[in-house]
Amino acid sequence: MPLTRADCERLDEADLLGGLRESFAVPERLIYLDGNSLGIMPRQAANRAAMVLKEWEEHLVGGWNDAGWWDLPITLGDKIARLLGAAPGTMVVTDNTTSNLFKVINAAIARDASGDIVAATTSFPSDLYVAADIAARHGRRLRLVGRDAESLTELLEQPVAVVVIEHVDFRTGALADMKAVTSHIHDRGALVIWDLSHSAGVVPVELAACGADFAVGCTYKYLNGGPGSPAYVYVAPHLITEATQPIPGWLGHAEPFRMEPDYRPSSTIRRFLTGTPSIVAMRVLESSIDLFDGIDISAVRAKSAALTDLFIRLVDERSPEAEVVSPRQAAMRGSQVSLRHQDGRAITRDLIAAGVRGDFRAPDLLRFGFAPLYLRFTDVWDAVDVLATVLDQRSASASNAEDDWHAPT
Amino acid sequence: MPLTRADCERLDEADLLGGLRESFAVPERLIYLDGNSLGIMPRQAANRAAMVLKEWEEHLVGGWNDAGWWDLPITLGDKIARLLGAAPGTMVVTDNTTSNLFKVINAAIARDASGDIVAATTSFPSDLYVAADIAARHGRRLRLVGRDAESLTELLEQPVAVVVIEHVDFRTGALADMKAVTSHIHDRGALVIWDLSHSAGVVPVELAACGADFAVGCTYKYLNGGPGSPAYVYVAPHLITEATQPIPGWLGHAEPFRMEPDYRPSSTIRRFLTGTPSIVAMRVLESSIDLFDGIDISAVRAKSAALTDLFIRLVDERSPEAEVVSPRQAAMRGSQVSLRHQDGRAITRDLIAAGVRGDFRAPDLLRFGFAPLYLRFTDVWDAVDVLATVLDQRSASASNAEDDWHAPT
Repeated sequence: MPLTRADCERLDEADLLGGLRESFAVPERLIYLDGNSLGIMPRQAANRAAMVLKEWEEHLVGGWNDAGWWDLPITLGDKIARLLGAAPGTMVVTDNTTSNLFKVINAAIARDASGDIVAATTSFPSDLYVAADIAARHGRRLRLVGRDAESLTELLEQPVAVVVIEHVDFRTGALADMKAVTSHIHDRGALVIWDLSHSAGVVPVELAACGADFAVGCTYKYLNGGPGSPAYVYVAPHLITEATQPIPGWLGHAEPFRMEPDYRPSSTIRRFLTGTPSIVAMRVLESSIDLFDGIDISAVRAKSAALTDLFIRLVDERSPEAEVVSPRQAAMRGSQVSLRHQDGRAITRDLIAAGVRGDFRAPDLLRFGFAPLYLRFTDVWDAVDVLATVLDQRSASASNAEDDWHAPT
Repeated sequence: MPLTRADCERLDEADLLGGLRESFAVPERLIYLDGNSLGIMPRQAANRAAMVLKEWEEHLVGGWNDAGWWDLPITLGDKIARLLGAAPGTMVVTDNTTSNLFKVINAAIARDASGDIVAATTSFPSDLYVAADIAARHGRRLRLVGRDAESLTELLEQPVAVVVIEHVDFRTGALADMKAVTSHIHDRGALVIWDLSHSAGVVPVELAACGADFAVGCTYKYLNGGPGSPAYVYVAPHLITEATQPIPGWLGHAEPFRMEPDYRPSSTIRRFLTGTPSIVAMRVLESSIDLFDGIDISAVRAKSAALTDLFIRLVDERSPEAEVVSPRQAAMRGSQVSLRHQDGRAITRDLIAAGVRGDFRAPDLLRFGFAPLYLRFTDVWDAVDVLATVLDQRSASASNAEDDWHAPT
């Protein structure tokens, strides 16, 4: 028996995370399925923005000590580390994802005289740009491979220094098995860098337990840190004291206020800091990270699986002409479902006009992200309802257009 | 005849920039002479912070187009360019000063196969760290030289690719002659990178007229952008299309939304962008940059010279035991006066306790920054009054301590 909207209402009533929606400034009359691109603003962001301005006004330069600004990249890093299965002192909030990836690829290849750099073909383009440029500058080969186990096995038959791979494919939402892939790469003597941009905050991540070497990621997707909010970088504990990165700034110095002419890197994760970071941006980000306090990330994951399962089922029932590109097994995907349709761009535009915000990736992918902290099961129902209407209207007008074409008048 | 406080009151009354103080959240009962480290908050920062959160709330991911976020590094760069004598399209706001310096040193040495990297010994340590690391990684020699014309001439007798130099020395406040130094360096076939951190917003800077090749700088000092506010990078128009930088991110791509696997740099200054920048931090910074609208920077410079002249004169009159280290000619210094005293650290602490905020740089420098947008001539008077009292008390207690020491009791 097909699902009904009433079924979805019952799911919302039973949803233990449902109350969190109130913590977000969810717009009325919009079903927002683009939290995989930019998360919705937590309501307390406004208080934190006001707070950091108050800190600036009252403490002035003294805020670096008195308001905890100096340690904020570390203290905020520790909060994110908790969400990502990493130990305190292994993560800092700093710079952007691209710059952090730049640092850790360089740190990784410094440990291996000649091995290749490998990246998944599916990587976010910025990751590929950095990997290719570093390879070219260091006389390394960059090899691009598929994310499947077979491709990974094949690639590792030649010497590899480091593999860069996204935990969740930003196009299809496919989720990699971090533990198995990491272990596979380690077996061949290479290091792995995980890009967590599309999994942090919505998939349980266990960096330490999986033995990941490095990780980077952004905070403006499911972590809801705001447009362009600062990124993070993770370095496994045993690598920290020997890892070097190529942008040695005063924030990474062992004793920055001695103002020494020579760089001596901090023996801690601080060495991955560069210059002075934006405190305002970090305070606003902190408001969204603090929202995760007391939230069980496995409950978030369970709701994410249920929302995406529901979306796929409803699309299959009501809009079968849109091909589901994402893995159909919830365990194999992140919190995103991508559909393929040759008119994807126009359909995305029509959906937005009708109050359903997803996005489009050329040539034919419609992407829908499902943020469990603020989305309801009825939102999924209503979104597919709109999608079905949009697709019906398109095929109706296409038929009409065809009629017109053949009509002599 | 010695100056009186009444004289200073008259100077304040005649000050055409005096009204600007109202635009800043100047703390009561504090004379803040540390604007060379972190400027005071412009009152409209609160509105801008609220505005950008409103943009986030209402536009969500659409804000990248609809709220102008995508172009903000450029539009804000253009506003700062106007203050620094640079043409529109030659400056972007992005990352931090250290990272931007890293980019432009790399861009500079890519144009010269083997020349040395030269930096002033007086450079801010972070600048030296980056220069030294790049030199080591590229097999270049790093040579450190004095800022005087003689040292510069000498150094240029051997092949040089690029010279990194601060416009204003962060320790002494000494101001370099940008036009003469640039021309001197160009005569020897080298490029020059100016660090404007301590001159932007308080000294007229003419990047284009001086023929500067590259410039970087922070925005949280005399530009009052807030703690860790984003930095800027300038590239001379004729260098933009051929300059390459080593952190190629998607924001610098010619067509970022095509999500191509290969990097094709934008033909514009955008190529100096890396990953996604903090929009919240940039909006807050924009509020302080907009304050300069309609302000004549030469009037700011004139007031700066008058404030620092006054400070030096009063120190000479009332606290001659503190040696003025900064150039005594206003034309030769930025908006900062540094004093030398062997007890500098303790004196700085005493001054802060007494409501005068300067800072200390080891081993013996007391630094005082004079931000003409919010400081009054009477502030200078009162600050020296406190300084004289602090120094008098110290020598009195030192005498007492000496008495105690020699006293048998």
